[in-house]
Amino acid sequence: MKLTEEQKAEIAELRATPRPTLRAVSEGMEAHLYNINPVLDHGFVRVIDYMGDDAAICQAARVSYGKGTKSVQNDEGLIRYLMRHWHSTPFEMCEIKLHVKLPVFVARQWIRHRTANVNEYSARYSILDREFYIPQPEHLAAQSVINNQGRGEVLAPEEAARVLEYLKNDAARAYDHYEEMIGQDGQQGLARELARMNLPANIYTQWYWKVDLHNLFHFLRLRADSHAQYEIRVYAEEMCRLVKDWVPAAYRAFEDYRMGGATLSEGALSCLRRMLAGEAVTEDNSGMSKGEWREFKDILG
Amino acid sequence: MKLTEEQKAEIAELRATPRPTLRAVSEGMEAHLYNINPVLDHGFVRVIDYMGDDAAICQAARVSYGKGTKSVQNDEGLIRYLMRHWHSTPFEMCEIKLHVKLPVFVARQWIRHRTANVNEYSARYSILDREFYIPQPEHLAAQSVINNQGRGEVLAPEEAARVLEYLKNDAARAYDHYEEMIGQDGQQGLARELARMNLPANIYTQWYWKVDLHNLFHFLRLRADSHAQYEIRVYAEEMCRLVKDWVPAAYRAFEDYRMGGATLSEGALSCLRRMLAGEAVTEDNSGMSKGEWREFKDILG
Amino acid sequence: MKLTEEQKAEIAELRATPRPTLRAVSEGMEAHLYNINPVLDHGFVRVIDYMGDDAAICQAARVSYGKGTKSVQNDEGLIRYLMRHWHSTPFEMCEIKLHVKLPVFVARQWIRHRTANVNEYSARYSILDREFYIPQPEHLAAQSVINNQGRGEVLAPEEAARVLEYLKNDAARAYDHYEEMIGQDGQQGLARELARMNLPANIYTQWYWKVDLHNLFHFLRLRADSHAQYEIRVYAEEMCRLVKDWVPAAYRAFEDYRMGGATLSEGALSCLRRMLAGEAVTEDNSGMSKGEWREFKDILG
Amino acid sequence: MKLTEEQKAEIAELRATPRPTLRAVSEGMEAHLYNINPVLDHGFVRVIDYMGDDAAICQAARVSYGKGTKSVQNDEGLIRYLMRHWHSTPFEMCEIKLHVKLPVFVARQWIRHRTANVNEYSARYSILDREFYIPQPEHLAAQSVINNQGRGEVLAPEEAARVLEYLKNDAARAYDHYEEMIGQDGQQGLARELARMNLPANIYTQWYWKVDLHNLFHFLRLRADSHAQYEIRVYAEEMCRLVKDWVPAAYRAFEDYRMGGATLSEGALSCLRRMLAGEAVTEDNSGMSKGEWREFKDILG
Repeated sequence: MKLTEEQKAEIAELRATPRPTLRAVSEGMEAHLYNINPVLDHGFVRVIDYMGDDAAICQAARVSYGKGTKSVQNDEGLIRYLMRHWHSTPFEMCEIKLHVKLPVFVARQWIRHRTANVNEYSARYSILDREFYIPQPEHLAAQSVINNQGRGEVLAPEEAARVLEYLKNDAARAYDHYEEMIGQDGQQGLARELARMNLPANIYTQWYWKVDLHNLFHFLRLRADSHAQYEIRVYAEEMCRLVKDWVPAAYRAFEDYRMGGATLSEGALSCLRRMLAGEAVTEDNSGMSKGEWREFKDILG
Repeated sequence: MKLTEEQKAEIAELRATPRPTLRAVSEGMEAHLYNINPVLDHGFVRVIDYMGDDAAICQAARVSYGKGTKSVQNDEGLIRYLMRHWHSTPFEMCEIKLHVKLPVFVARQWIRHRTANVNEYSARYSILDREFYIPQPEHLAAQSVINNQGRGEVLAPEEAARVLEYLKNDAARAYDHYEEMIGQDGQQGLARELARMNLPANIYTQWYWKVDLHNLFHFLRLRADSHAQYEIRVYAEEMCRLVKDWVPAAYRAFEDYRMGGATLSEGALSCLRRMLAGEAVTEDNSGMSKGEWREFKDILG
Repeated sequence: MKLTEEQKAEIAELRATPRPTLRAVSEGMEAHLYNINPVLDHGFVRVIDYMGDDAAICQAARVSYGKGTKSVQNDEGLIRYLMRHWHSTPFEMCEIKLHVKLPVFVARQWIRHRTANVNEYSARYSILDREFYIPQPEHLAAQSVINNQGRGEVLAPEEAARVLEYLKNDAARAYDHYEEMIGQDGQQGLARELARMNLPANIYTQWYWKVDLHNLFHFLRLRADSHAQYEIRVYAEEMCRLVKDWVPAAYRAFEDYRMGGATLSEGALSCLRRMLAGEAVTEDNSGMSKGEWREFKDILG
Repeated sequence: MKLTEEQKAEIAELRATPRPTLRAVSEGMEAHLYNINPVLDHGFVRVIDYMGDDAAICQAARVSYGKGTKSVQNDEGLIRYLMRHWHSTPFEMCEIKLHVKLPVFVARQWIRHRTANVNEYSARYSILDREFYIPQPEHLAAQSVINNQGRGEVLAPEEAARVLEYLKNDAARAYDHYEEMIGQDGQQGLARELARMNLPANIYTQWYWKVDLHNLFHFLRLRADSHAQYEIRVYAEEMCRLVKDWVPAAYRAFEDYRMGGATLSEGALSCLRRMLAGEAVTEDNSGMSKGEWREFKDILG
């Protein structure tokens, strides 16, 4: 992740000029504002703005005139209660705005979460940079033989080398031709909205992404999960780290009830009750399918 | 609009403690934070928090690393361009959180705008206050004979007096019985979630309402319009005043292109071209319906 | 629930004229179309239209050219997989449109679910009917002493009688005055948009409500739950009955994974593992709060 | 656009088996169901399902027990009134489900409309087909010198030939390597979720897309507009043709008030009034910017 001197100066300037505000302030988040948090080889996540803190969640839940805080302990209890009982609206009262740089194929997965606001860098209007995601060899894995949409074993070194050669060369050639087509030096150039179609899905794009805390937690639960594709998971994990510093109590509740928790079906609960009563429950007498049983055993550790 | 001493103290405390932030700050909005802006007899609008300012709209539109501002003049031009061409996402990058106290029948109209976050005071959990909207006599108008869902002439004084008597007495009696039913002094009291059903639609409720600037403008265009019901329009007008201080350039563009502007149909544009060419266009040869023609003439002044 | 002869004739006419379609048809739902399913004393739920069936969920999940069905058994397995792994988009591919008549205080709770389309009967434009929800005595319960927003014991008969008297009389008087104010017999009448404010929250309103199956399931999970207020729960239960006939396989998966299932926190799962290993876990050594522990014990039966 | 024999058979089977329904039926749309409507070189739009018709819009607006139709003429008047006054909810009561095959760079633009339901073909799970959008030479245009995000003149033949050579060769090579990397013949193959990153943005993807009529109109207004990129506009135009047969009255109102209409700012209306009063208004005394004035003159023809 390289920044130009101009970009570094812009960020430094923004961080150099604190101003007074009467709004709720999260010290933990102020420390992160504008900074580049690198992800993958050329990507990043930056916090551009935020609204609210842990106390703001309680303030909204209580529809209060003042801060809405009774005591820190009391607030944390309320936040845990709200999370446990799926009260989503108080968490919607916090908002975050991020600047994210990410490969196009990650952006395509990301955008499936529709309850957010997005401004993407326009490749109709502007020229994309020559930056492509090239995986580290240890992240080049074979198609999983268990999970139809995941990865299995890491590729053998010679396989990995062949793959990396393809990815690098094809990206370089595609970009060379992209540049030639838009023709910056006088000759008649192809419209950018057309030339971009030659660029592969590992090219980087960037966007401003704004979302409320409830929907962000939903995104993180799915994308920071161990089954998510590695290339989006690293973004989610970076965001988890930022959210933890922003709203520590809400994040703890999220970790306990969502990330670390699990949903059991009626059938699974029934098996559990039999097991607690001392019965030996097996896949055969569980009434579950093979896949459900495997997931059930995973949950019970 | 009466506040308890405790509420006043809470608001004063919030306004007394500025803290440094690195985020975008709108001076115009800081002046409004937490203050009560009275609306109707017992209602209000209060700004609890906001995210972004005019520059933040441009920053997002440019997906920039720094402030995104080139010059104030340049920014205003960009904002006008975005508004004129229906680019909604940059305006979605600003957010506002309000605390609103309003009669239930106004709340019911308000909530039809779904793209916002809401936390309403719970009448299942808490006891509602004895506060009802009682219109001023000059706002008691007859059903319109032109517009099927609007008001016409103001009621004659004796009619108005009779109406006010009904509204006041029925509200008072309903509340007396509500209180008796929930029975706060020892006897077995009816559940609040049931007792509330006796309360009329002019009782006040309150909520936290959070919305982005694009959707807020949409709300204001419909609700600050002269055809909106008076009781919601006064809330919209108060909000216009606040938004104007928050994002002055965006508000000016909104006034020019939305509030003060008008949409003409293909048929209306065709009439207009004939008129500019010197033709005398009348309702009869306009091809418009009676209603369309009346609205068209209104637009042309 | 009384219908006029005209309304009955309209419904009969709609049910009398089947037409050929090439779209997916759910036999189970065709049997319900347009019929009145009574709820509470004057309310109902009616299916006006629907899109899709169980096979359509699979068809969308497979992005297929044809029906997308492999076998009924195979489809049910896919639907269970999708539900278990929180794949929401295939369920969004089914849609239902309902006509609902319901008390205003129920409508106010209902509308908090924002991801649906709504057309409500306009009390600015039209006159509301003289119909109020008056609970059966067995549904008049005291405020719960455990759950701050629920009901406890049923009221004693004399208490219940007193409450019913208030509800009936206040509603009748409010409606008498509403009618007088809008003044249908020649004298100058108050605008409907104003007169309605005198009406209590147990008056009936009606709306068209359209929602996709994913969001409907979310609604039903919260509102058919035993902790939901009785007056909205009976609507949810009626809708469950209809959905079961519409998309039987999806409904079975919903029952197993959502209605009958439970989400356990990381802390609860840890207790569970200790219990399965033979340890005696108590509230004291569970690390849970009082409320969490009670809920945990409830789940384990 | 080539279909396999199996796909043709699946479509033929679906069209061969009409079934009776009591739902609203649109004859115009039945004629289109399932058929392939080709767009670009390999793309298409297919109607998979629909809900509602012109009468259903009126039925919802009237919250009626029966069909809600008074007379065809009366209905059309109501639909025009609703469209003119921005009543969006009745149009939301109609829904359409499409199967669309489209280049990835078009899909990326399309998905910016968030108020729709989408199921995309998964390139994590499945292998993409070797199909790329290669423009016709007459659609290869240079970057516009007026509009920063549009096209200007068509490329000279030799320029066009060079561009097409690049697009074809780069796509072919990228796909060859994609195939090699996923390695279908025994050797250890790269996970599909990784291999796909080598594919350019002109490869075709496909999805099921479901949207209500109000939001579809919004999409069409922006994407069937002459300023939209050609490659998405052709999809929008094809959809306009389908919608016209589905809800003819609503489509006529849409054409008159949205597609053929224009929004004038307060400043523009003021100029217009001066012009109608006989004044010679010029760019200089209009108070408009250069861009606004040009657009204003375009509207006045």
